[in-house]
Amino acid sequence: MSRQLHFNLFLHDTGHHEASWRLPESDPHANLSLAAHQHLTRVAEDARFDSVFLADSPVLWSDPGRRPAGKLEPTLLLASLAATTTRIGLIATASTSYNEPFNLARRFASLDHLSGGRAGWNIVTTAGEAAARNFGLDEQPQHRTRYERADEFLEVSTKLWDSWADDAIVADKGAGVHAVKDRVRAIGHRGKFFQVEGPLNVPRPPQGHPLLVQAGSSENGREFAAKWAEAIFVAQPTLAESQAFYADLKRRAVAAGRNPDHVVVLPGIVPVIGDTPAQARELEAELERLIAPEFAVATLATVLGVDPARLKLDEPLPADLPTEDEIEGHKSRRTLIVDWGRRENLTVRQLIGKLGGGRGHRTFTGTPVQVADTIQHYFENGAADGFNIMPAVLPSGIEAFASRVVPILQERGLFRTEYTGTTLREHYGLPRPANSLELISR
Amino acid sequence: MSRQLHFNLFLHDTGHHEASWRLPESDPHANLSLAAHQHLTRVAEDARFDSVFLADSPVLWSDPGRRPAGKLEPTLLLASLAATTTRIGLIATASTSYNEPFNLARRFASLDHLSGGRAGWNIVTTAGEAAARNFGLDEQPQHRTRYERADEFLEVSTKLWDSWADDAIVADKGAGVHAVKDRVRAIGHRGKFFQVEGPLNVPRPPQGHPLLVQAGSSENGREFAAKWAEAIFVAQPTLAESQAFYADLKRRAVAAGRNPDHVVVLPGIVPVIGDTPAQARELEAELERLIAPEFAVATLATVLGVDPARLKLDEPLPADLPTEDEIEGHKSRRTLIVDWGRRENLTVRQLIGKLGGGRGHRTFTGTPVQVADTIQHYFENGAADGFNIMPAVLPSGIEAFASRVVPILQERGLFRTEYTGTTLREHYGLPRPANSLELISR
Repeated sequence: MSRQLHFNLFLHDTGHHEASWRLPESDPHANLSLAAHQHLTRVAEDARFDSVFLADSPVLWSDPGRRPAGKLEPTLLLASLAATTTRIGLIATASTSYNEPFNLARRFASLDHLSGGRAGWNIVTTAGEAAARNFGLDEQPQHRTRYERADEFLEVSTKLWDSWADDAIVADKGAGVHAVKDRVRAIGHRGKFFQVEGPLNVPRPPQGHPLLVQAGSSENGREFAAKWAEAIFVAQPTLAESQAFYADLKRRAVAAGRNPDHVVVLPGIVPVIGDTPAQARELEAELERLIAPEFAVATLATVLGVDPARLKLDEPLPADLPTEDEIEGHKSRRTLIVDWGRRENLTVRQLIGKLGGGRGHRTFTGTPVQVADTIQHYFENGAADGFNIMPAVLPSGIEAFASRVVPILQERGLFRTEYTGTTLREHYGLPRPANSLELISR
Repeated sequence: MSRQLHFNLFLHDTGHHEASWRLPESDPHANLSLAAHQHLTRVAEDARFDSVFLADSPVLWSDPGRRPAGKLEPTLLLASLAATTTRIGLIATASTSYNEPFNLARRFASLDHLSGGRAGWNIVTTAGEAAARNFGLDEQPQHRTRYERADEFLEVSTKLWDSWADDAIVADKGAGVHAVKDRVRAIGHRGKFFQVEGPLNVPRPPQGHPLLVQAGSSENGREFAAKWAEAIFVAQPTLAESQAFYADLKRRAVAAGRNPDHVVVLPGIVPVIGDTPAQARELEAELERLIAPEFAVATLATVLGVDPARLKLDEPLPADLPTEDEIEGHKSRRTLIVDWGRRENLTVRQLIGKLGGGRGHRTFTGTPVQVADTIQHYFENGAADGFNIMPAVLPSGIEAFASRVVPILQERGLFRTEYTGTTLREHYGLPRPANSLELISR
């Protein structure tokens, strides 16, 4: 079989467009609704998607005035979804800066057991002062320090998952021995950030480790991804930028001693689908009109690290913005936005319109065949191993993609018509990791 | 309607008896099985139980050799169970010593939203050096310090749940306003243990606050319960001790300015049911024979704070055990066991047999009518508002209780035949708490 596309659905209540909740069709309480998330996940599973994904930060992210801001904790929401799905992977975001490794490693091990090997962890270091202030800090740890902690956090987590040998449990009723004692081992970790004795109180996950996912594109983020990540979500607005990122990540993975095929690169795209090109463009324009500019300006100012008053709706971005080095979070997002605004000479209003749709991700607007063509073009020209699908409006956007774009790609032999594996790793063609403690102790 | 009994099912894979996993009927992998937990919860819901409950500690609790030791993280497991149940309450244990309030308050708020108002939190401070060593500490915080932290943890958590007003969300599509900005408020908490800015990133839970549950019976534990707990799990081996505890707790609740009816006391009982009294006693004896004594001695020694070598199977407990004041955890459990052993002049082997069945909880052994009679007697004589049902063997123990004991109590008008409410608070007859920040800001 030829190389196959991979698809992840980025769950986001009424859609990734800022204003999607305001459409007549939208349920403005979908963000808190299990039923709404069950429906989205069922559509993706029926279309044989590899996974669904939830972003997260331990802070009230956006202004609650502007759009549905409350977010259910992702590992819990995905645990609920595990009960009503059978094959699709379940990827939750969680922060290495504001969790303890024992607790988080255990939650992901539990999700992997509950789902029969379908758990993934999108590892984030959590930018922003506001999050820090929810955890006893007056200011956030530096970008580099956050990534150092993330690196040690992963070291501890993988050791904890490996603290039970795969053959530890014998369940010998007659002898009264449930597990072989020396096959469950302390890890005795003592590092710069953490001291964790172990073992974990959950046996090794069905997948060995949950799938490790990453999304930061800063220099620190890319180095971290090259070392740890098995799937990478990226935001690149043009084909050329996607190709450059793809090549860079694969090269870094090789430099880190890894097989580049075991690092799956998934650019985020916003498919906007119409029966005709004009109809698709009209849908895009309708959404831009619904954005409330005062809220959007405040968000943009936060990412750029400037006073909102300096951003004038009908003027281009100010010339003297802080550089990527001068801000402590959203580094790659900031640079992507600034470059985009300057390259296309956009006003702040125009830039907000573009960002409202995809927040820096590429919008693929057109008929089903046009969208499928663009996906295939990226896939066959060194820009993607698959895509992180971010519909502007949900559930209609994923229903349209699943029913109209996916069949075209299946006919072309580029996407599965049935699941061939049962675990998330199997869907993405990734190996089950060997047990690191096993190698030492035998 | 007369005063009604309440029932909680304490979930524990193959049963609360140490050796239950060794029975021919038992699935020795039930501890990691979502299907096994779904079955138990369905039986309890079909019998109109108020709730199910999961104990927990962030450490490998028992020797993995002796019995199934791996435990799925309770908030995730209950989130899964929320998806396949509609009425029954879902109570998870979580530690105030080894979590951050922002994260934990959010998980319980999320569970409450996911389940439509069915979440409960069994608040524990987590005894033991082993747990401390999973979180960067060489020794555990003192008992008193743990309870001080727990108290502030609850203060922060309740403020976070109240940080969204009940009427914050207006979802006005036309005006583009999702929430009224000043109805979502920072909490600005600065205390001895925590600094948390807030607001929470989840709207107020359907129940206002999840049901607050507590189980420690030490002096610090009782004071904490009187202040915060709305349902209390207790372990008392005799009727007289249960009556004394019940009266003490209600008195302390009144002293704390609370309505004593809003503190529901639920003793743990181990129902062992047979067609005849002799058959029930035979089942009890069969389980005692299956206990592996070397493992049980090690567990007992940990609770008592002594070297396992000092416990001789066929001799009584040593005379010079450490006192309750001299140990830092399991304080009330230790005293209950020591008093029991001395009162009945039990050998270590006999004591282990009793503890294997109920770990200090009362065993109700007999025919269905005898078990129902004992429950009614406790309920009507100031010893209980209901019971925490801890079957020695699962699922058979809860199936027998649900099909044979519950109908007798329903016929006697002591237990509901249909749910009358939809939330966990409604099942237990507890009020939805007012919003504390609301009172201040209006």
